[in-house]
Amino acid sequence: MPTSKDIDVNKLNFTIGPVQSSEHIRNIGAEQVPYFRTQEFSTLMLENERLMKQLADAEANARVCFITGSGTASMEAVVSNCFTPQDRLLIINGGTFGHRFEELAEIYEIPHTTVHVEMGHKLTKEQLYAFDGQSYSALLVNMHETSTGVLYDMDMIADFCRKNSIFLVVDAISSFLCDSFSMKRWGVSVMIAASQKALACHPGISMITLSSEAVQRITSHNVKCLYLNLNLALSNGERGQTPFTPAISILRQLNARVKDIIASGGVEKEIQRVAALASDFRSRISDLPFSLFPERMSNALTAICPNNVSAYSIFTTLKDEYDIWVCPNGGILADKVLRVGHIGDLSVSDNTRLINALKDMQQRGLL
Amino acid sequence: MPTSKDIDVNKLNFTIGPVQSSEHIRNIGAEQVPYFRTQEFSTLMLENERLMKQLADAEANARVCFITGSGTASMEAVVSNCFTPQDRLLIINGGTFGHRFEELAEIYEIPHTTVHVEMGHKLTKEQLYAFDGQSYSALLVNMHETSTGVLYDMDMIADFCRKNSIFLVVDAISSFLCDSFSMKRWGVSVMIAASQKALACHPGISMITLSSEAVQRITSHNVKCLYLNLNLALSNGERGQTPFTPAISILRQLNARVKDIIASGGVEKEIQRVAALASDFRSRISDLPFSLFPERMSNALTAICPNNVSAYSIFTTLKDEYDIWVCPNGGILADKVLRVGHIGDLSVSDNTRLINALKDMQQRGLL
Repeated sequence: MPTSKDIDVNKLNFTIGPVQSSEHIRNIGAEQVPYFRTQEFSTLMLENERLMKQLADAEANARVCFITGSGTASMEAVVSNCFTPQDRLLIINGGTFGHRFEELAEIYEIPHTTVHVEMGHKLTKEQLYAFDGQSYSALLVNMHETSTGVLYDMDMIADFCRKNSIFLVVDAISSFLCDSFSMKRWGVSVMIAASQKALACHPGISMITLSSEAVQRITSHNVKCLYLNLNLALSNGERGQTPFTPAISILRQLNARVKDIIASGGVEKEIQRVAALASDFRSRISDLPFSLFPERMSNALTAICPNNVSAYSIFTTLKDEYDIWVCPNGGILADKVLRVGHIGDLSVSDNTRLINALKDMQQRGLL
Repeated sequence: MPTSKDIDVNKLNFTIGPVQSSEHIRNIGAEQVPYFRTQEFSTLMLENERLMKQLADAEANARVCFITGSGTASMEAVVSNCFTPQDRLLIINGGTFGHRFEELAEIYEIPHTTVHVEMGHKLTKEQLYAFDGQSYSALLVNMHETSTGVLYDMDMIADFCRKNSIFLVVDAISSFLCDSFSMKRWGVSVMIAASQKALACHPGISMITLSSEAVQRITSHNVKCLYLNLNLALSNGERGQTPFTPAISILRQLNARVKDIIASGGVEKEIQRVAALASDFRSRISDLPFSLFPERMSNALTAICPNNVSAYSIFTTLKDEYDIWVCPNGGILADKVLRVGHIGDLSVSDNTRLINALKDMQQRGLL
């Protein structure tokens, strides 16, 4: 029977999560996990909340819930805790994660309309304004639809929501720290992020940053769940605690990572760093047999369509023969679209290694 | 404003989770996190499932779901996925975690009757058999009620469930690998465990081991949730995957830890090791001003009542003045009961350090 001893953790990782962590962050993973029902851990968590608000450019009264779970856990918590069957949601669906918001609205029986965006395409003003003046109570969008690499136009979406007094929920999981973001500027009510994307910590924590309006929605609604009950998270969070044992080591990594970002020049500097990696990669694939998939790209990843071969076969060859992970796709995009992430502890010389591998594959007739 | 730089991860940890991890396990936390939508990670996860079944002495057709979340996430998944309002549950409630099962049954509107056990006391045959022949469909019990240290008599409970054809759910979170356990011998349908107890990995993963009967219950029931949907976990698990990005580093730690346990002689050997630490500690506090709280104790922890001072004050003094964490209690037991764990990477010499600290406190008039 095969055993797991062969798993190689040292491949060069260009996926879109989990990503490579710096040595500083990884070393925290090697430390003993401190007991957490203490003032010391509360201090760390209150600091995490303050720093996340700073990075999200949130209002002074905003709150942050830290959920031990994937980004989907936080997406579910937001849908179930913020909305009731009295709401009417407008959901932007341009891929897997837009579809996930739709699934959640169905599960919780929240009335909703889906704005279908063709995969790889941007949301147009015409598509969005077809729903103008129709009394929707909230709009849910994956700022960066991770499955296709499309970055939606948040200025346009924010204007629409302001004009229609719509509560704006933004899944920024794979865009946070890659593309410019501001809760205040865009009037975002809820922003979702996760530990294993550009925050470049281990997977296991997702975060929900809530405007005071969102907090009010949650506290006035008696959600029927325990683990994803944001009222409990908010009340425990007031003293820097979580209702249930959290992934303490990852919360400690987050604390260190956010301080590292701030010490290195802050959010805009980090976004510039990711953008430069993306731009370098994009310029260097121009003479390779790929076409870009999305119309409007996030800095987080480059989604490319190979002209001649299956995208999935490139993923497999890079993994098995070059010790490089890129990000395959699922479903109908599996053979069509390959995704190359620019997040985590990567450098231009890492790009060079990937480009060289692709050129070598081309010479071998594998591209 | 206080910052978190002062958090000390190297205190001697006698809490009941998170606990001390071995160097081998901690070092995995320092490695890069591998990409997981691969055959290599699937192999690891299928091995994790096989090894967990072995440790739980589960039937050949049993399955294991790995949930990124605390033990409560798995408790909620079990209640919501296994039961419907057509069930009638019997819930043993002798403390915080028994009460949690009750809360969950209320949230999901599953009819239930609570067997109230006085805190610190064992469940008696009379108490249990008062519900004999009353057509309950399931019994839910925290084998070790972690808040009080009581270990329930599983032979008695298993006999009762067999006699009444009752589906038996066991939260073994803080008892697994501390007290003898067998799904097959006791006819347990569902067993819940967590990464940060005697498995001594980082917190963030809980595990649900399901008998084939439990799997059948779950697959025939369309639960209204996404993140804790065990049907999705089971179907993805068939190929060694999880529906959502899991806490990969902790799943890799679990794999290594379980193999370490097996290489060191197996489950019974590990239980003996924990039992020996518990026994050593219990014999050495006999001349200190404590009385034992529970009537029937798990090896996982010793719950003690200080005769003269507040239990919480002992926790604080040990933390701040002796660099030792023991486990405080919440609610009405906060000042009455102190818990000393015997799980994780601890030794008899660690017990000596704690005993010496307590003797020193006694000399200083603090006990």
